[in-house]
Amino acid sequence: MKEKEKNNKKQTDIKGVKIIPLGGLEQIGMNITAIEYEDSIIVIDCGLSFPEDEMLGIDLVIPDVTYLKENIDKVKGFIITHGHEDHIGSLPYVLRDINVPIYATRLTIGIIENKLKEHNLLKNTKRKVIKYGQSINLGCFRIEFIRANHSIADAAMLAIYTPAGIIFHTGDFKVDYTPVFGEPIDLQRIGEIGKKGVMALLCDSTNVERPGYTMSESTVGKTFDSIFTDYVKQRIIVATFASNVDRVQQIINSAAKFGRKIVIEGRSMVNIMTTAMELGYIKMPENMLIDIEMMKNYTDDQLVLITTGSQGESMAALSRMAASIHKKVTIKPGDVVILSSTPIPGNEKAVSKVINDLSMKGAKVIYQDTHVSGHACQEEIKLIYTLLKPKYAVPVHGEYKHLIRHAELAQTLGIPKENIFLLSSGDVLTLSDEKAAITGEVPAQGILVDGLGVGDVGNIVLRDRQLLSENGLIIVVVSLERYSNQVLAGPDIVSRGFVYVRESENLMEEARDVVEKALEKCLSRNNTDWGKMKTEIKDSLNDFIWKKTKRNPMILPIIMEV
Amino acid sequence: MKEKEKNNKKQTDIKGVKIIPLGGLEQIGMNITAIEYEDSIIVIDCGLSFPEDEMLGIDLVIPDVTYLKENIDKVKGFIITHGHEDHIGSLPYVLRDINVPIYATRLTIGIIENKLKEHNLLKNTKRKVIKYGQSINLGCFRIEFIRANHSIADAAMLAIYTPAGIIFHTGDFKVDYTPVFGEPIDLQRIGEIGKKGVMALLCDSTNVERPGYTMSESTVGKTFDSIFTDYVKQRIIVATFASNVDRVQQIINSAAKFGRKIVIEGRSMVNIMTTAMELGYIKMPENMLIDIEMMKNYTDDQLVLITTGSQGESMAALSRMAASIHKKVTIKPGDVVILSSTPIPGNEKAVSKVINDLSMKGAKVIYQDTHVSGHACQEEIKLIYTLLKPKYAVPVHGEYKHLIRHAELAQTLGIPKENIFLLSSGDVLTLSDEKAAITGEVPAQGILVDGLGVGDVGNIVLRDRQLLSENGLIIVVVSLERYSNQVLAGPDIVSRGFVYVRESENLMEEARDVVEKALEKCLSRNNTDWGKMKTEIKDSLNDFIWKKTKRNPMILPIIMEV
Repeated sequence: MKEKEKNNKKQTDIKGVKIIPLGGLEQIGMNITAIEYEDSIIVIDCGLSFPEDEMLGIDLVIPDVTYLKENIDKVKGFIITHGHEDHIGSLPYVLRDINVPIYATRLTIGIIENKLKEHNLLKNTKRKVIKYGQSINLGCFRIEFIRANHSIADAAMLAIYTPAGIIFHTGDFKVDYTPVFGEPIDLQRIGEIGKKGVMALLCDSTNVERPGYTMSESTVGKTFDSIFTDYVKQRIIVATFASNVDRVQQIINSAAKFGRKIVIEGRSMVNIMTTAMELGYIKMPENMLIDIEMMKNYTDDQLVLITTGSQGESMAALSRMAASIHKKVTIKPGDVVILSSTPIPGNEKAVSKVINDLSMKGAKVIYQDTHVSGHACQEEIKLIYTLLKPKYAVPVHGEYKHLIRHAELAQTLGIPKENIFLLSSGDVLTLSDEKAAITGEVPAQGILVDGLGVGDVGNIVLRDRQLLSENGLIIVVVSLERYSNQVLAGPDIVSRGFVYVRESENLMEEARDVVEKALEKCLSRNNTDWGKMKTEIKDSLNDFIWKKTKRNPMILPIIMEV
Repeated sequence: MKEKEKNNKKQTDIKGVKIIPLGGLEQIGMNITAIEYEDSIIVIDCGLSFPEDEMLGIDLVIPDVTYLKENIDKVKGFIITHGHEDHIGSLPYVLRDINVPIYATRLTIGIIENKLKEHNLLKNTKRKVIKYGQSINLGCFRIEFIRANHSIADAAMLAIYTPAGIIFHTGDFKVDYTPVFGEPIDLQRIGEIGKKGVMALLCDSTNVERPGYTMSESTVGKTFDSIFTDYVKQRIIVATFASNVDRVQQIINSAAKFGRKIVIEGRSMVNIMTTAMELGYIKMPENMLIDIEMMKNYTDDQLVLITTGSQGESMAALSRMAASIHKKVTIKPGDVVILSSTPIPGNEKAVSKVINDLSMKGAKVIYQDTHVSGHACQEEIKLIYTLLKPKYAVPVHGEYKHLIRHAELAQTLGIPKENIFLLSSGDVLTLSDEKAAITGEVPAQGILVDGLGVGDVGNIVLRDRQLLSENGLIIVVVSLERYSNQVLAGPDIVSRGFVYVRESENLMEEARDVVEKALEKCLSRNNTDWGKMKTEIKDSLNDFIWKKTKRNPMILPIIMEV
């Protein structure tokens, strides 16, 4: 496979279609890929990613769409594969600059519309619902939507017919022969397209490390039934991903069998369920859904509460119940809580905390074997390759370790090493039937969003936050008389996040002495360069504090001229 | 089982032996338990724990031993079950106040001695090596050391013969019928002690969520052999836990079969291996171990590098290699890196990062099926209960979710619910053959260590660090003339970790205006209360910044009187 050899990037002599991922590589999240041919660009997905641990205080990360902005005249539309945040979450930010129509299946458009409403963008955004099997023409491209299975209903794969050949994009998928809602993935059509000849396959890598195949969503329904049977008398609370409509349907089905009412709690659960019910993706028996305020009118054995918070998110409904700060639900001994999910990497400890807290309140927490993945394992990925027999393979949706594993797997299926491309976000891969190479690079750094600020927090700010978070800070303020440079007031020392000052009065006294000496030294040398004075204060205080405490607080000298 | 019902804690009419965990419950880590009978106390283990995510800047957490200090005359010694940090790591801190002898097996004492040397405590600390099968008498107690298996050699279980009955403490253990070094766990003796009648069992809960049994350590050796066979020509780097002496032995064994030399890298790996070799726990063929500087004299197929960093610890050797900042080892395409470990909860993302970074350098990284746990799964725990048939069960070493699962498991084995005690650290459990109850509570909050400071970082400091880490801070400095309260200089505004100021000059200008207005307002009202003035500045700036940015930096007004 072609690895990141820079010399590859210089080939520019290829005429063909360009695949330009602006995100989604190096990470699971922020999926967005531009497909370009001459004067036409379409954009597949427009997701966000959640901040890495070191991105302190950052709310979310969105893609850099400079390349699209610079080629705005070419951009024909967004094609969205499904309604997960890592595929739609950046739309409200990106649409401000790239206001082109959005094409997606019905539930996906419904979820996007919720999001646009929140951002006041609904009115000015064109949207079009596309059915499975339907094709649309955008510029020189024809895009066909193909039925897939995933952990959200209405997920689509895309066959993109370009003048240079067919590009097949799997989106996120699994192969579910017995799905809860609708039909299995359209393997017949995939085979048919394969028969036509596929130039390039962009395939989901999320579960490529797992051998075998992912279990059917419908197996979880059996688990629910058996839990409902075991705990007939108890109140049952189920936390799962709001967007997993099929999962929620199965909870409703089990509840219906046992004559229980349904309460839905958590903002995103309420939002998505409302949309899913309106659009007919959830079948709720009449009079089954009750308002959370009505819970008091029912006994425990008559209730099922479906809630957000299965990832231990601190502000989600289940976490608030676990922490006893939920206004309407109080966990009590005997309650049965099902976490229908597995922790996303990075959330393990938060999820454990919720389980511990709920258990301490006497709830029975069930969190093993209550979830199946929405992504294809190795055997399913092999199936897709074997149906499509692509000329080129471009593993997508994964960290580098996933992409490289995917590349190895593709090789075992007969794709030659030189036809497998491990891209980085920003790479321009140009493909024709004869040739393929990385021919350029466009900006593709994630942009940090903090509150209303988009891109105003950079590395310097993050480094300061890191430093402050580890050791706090010490501020030294001193007032000097203009011209004479006499000390008029101070040095005053203020610290935050360093030590609890009342218990460290001596240390702070000594620190003051150290600063005074440093000041005297500067002033006696008639050193009136404030920069130097600050450095002197900083260095001497730094040395002193390190010697005394082995800590490195940020030291911030402020000199005021009076 | 007895849950945390406060009314239980008031029973004080029981005469018996007291079990007082000072740590190790609510968490995996910081294991330390006092056993008390009349005028004798012994302390089992003295571990540390690593900081939780929200303990910003904290290096480690040690137990509060106030209770031991207050009863120092009773304390007879530390009995250490094995040499892992969560069982020995707090000794250097605790020994300063509780300087009593340490009893442990040979390798455990060796590892402790390394630690004491580093802290200059070796000379003043009494240590005694105890063999498996040997007993010691301390006060009214007799303590027998029993052979166990674990992910470190020389792990012991303890049978504590007290006037009230036998307490059996498993330490950390697994059942390994085919261990790499030494013998399997001494099940015969455990059965024999069970036959005598065991009052209470304190048993490891770490893997209680896992059905079945943990695989033998020796199975990993077979995996190594097969990897070494597959990659005969490549340089092989294996990262594992430094303390897993048997794992390292198996790497050496595989290397020996393939005629490779061994290089050991990483401070803790070098330390523990040196001790293990001196004490005969590692068998290294002659001339096999070479210095890292000598690597250049060998070809790739002649080398195996054993290193720290399997948990993605940012400063460990492997992470430094992955980040290209290791001075002596440069990862190159073709290198084979084996991560012989699974990520400890919380380390998943750091481990993934190392895997990604190494893969991008062209290394083949192998990290699946290259590790077995050192802790007992459900079937092994059942075996120990069935051999010992204890009257009372006290699940230890685990978060609450583990303890409660352990309690359920004990019930299935016939231990009555009322004889199972889910303790919190600090609970005093008093046991006699007739009665058992929680009879009191002692201090047992973890104490935070930050640099040289032990316990000087509390909640206020942590809250400040949290706030600073999320939004940074804005400092407002103003000089006022004494008496007249005229503004002599300022307000100056300095920010760190908030926004990159050069790009937000307007915002900072406006912020200055807001502060000036707030000041004017105060001064025009002849408000000379500085506290109120600061509040006014803070509130108005807070409002302004929130409106403009939806962020909440810490705002720190400083008024200097000149």
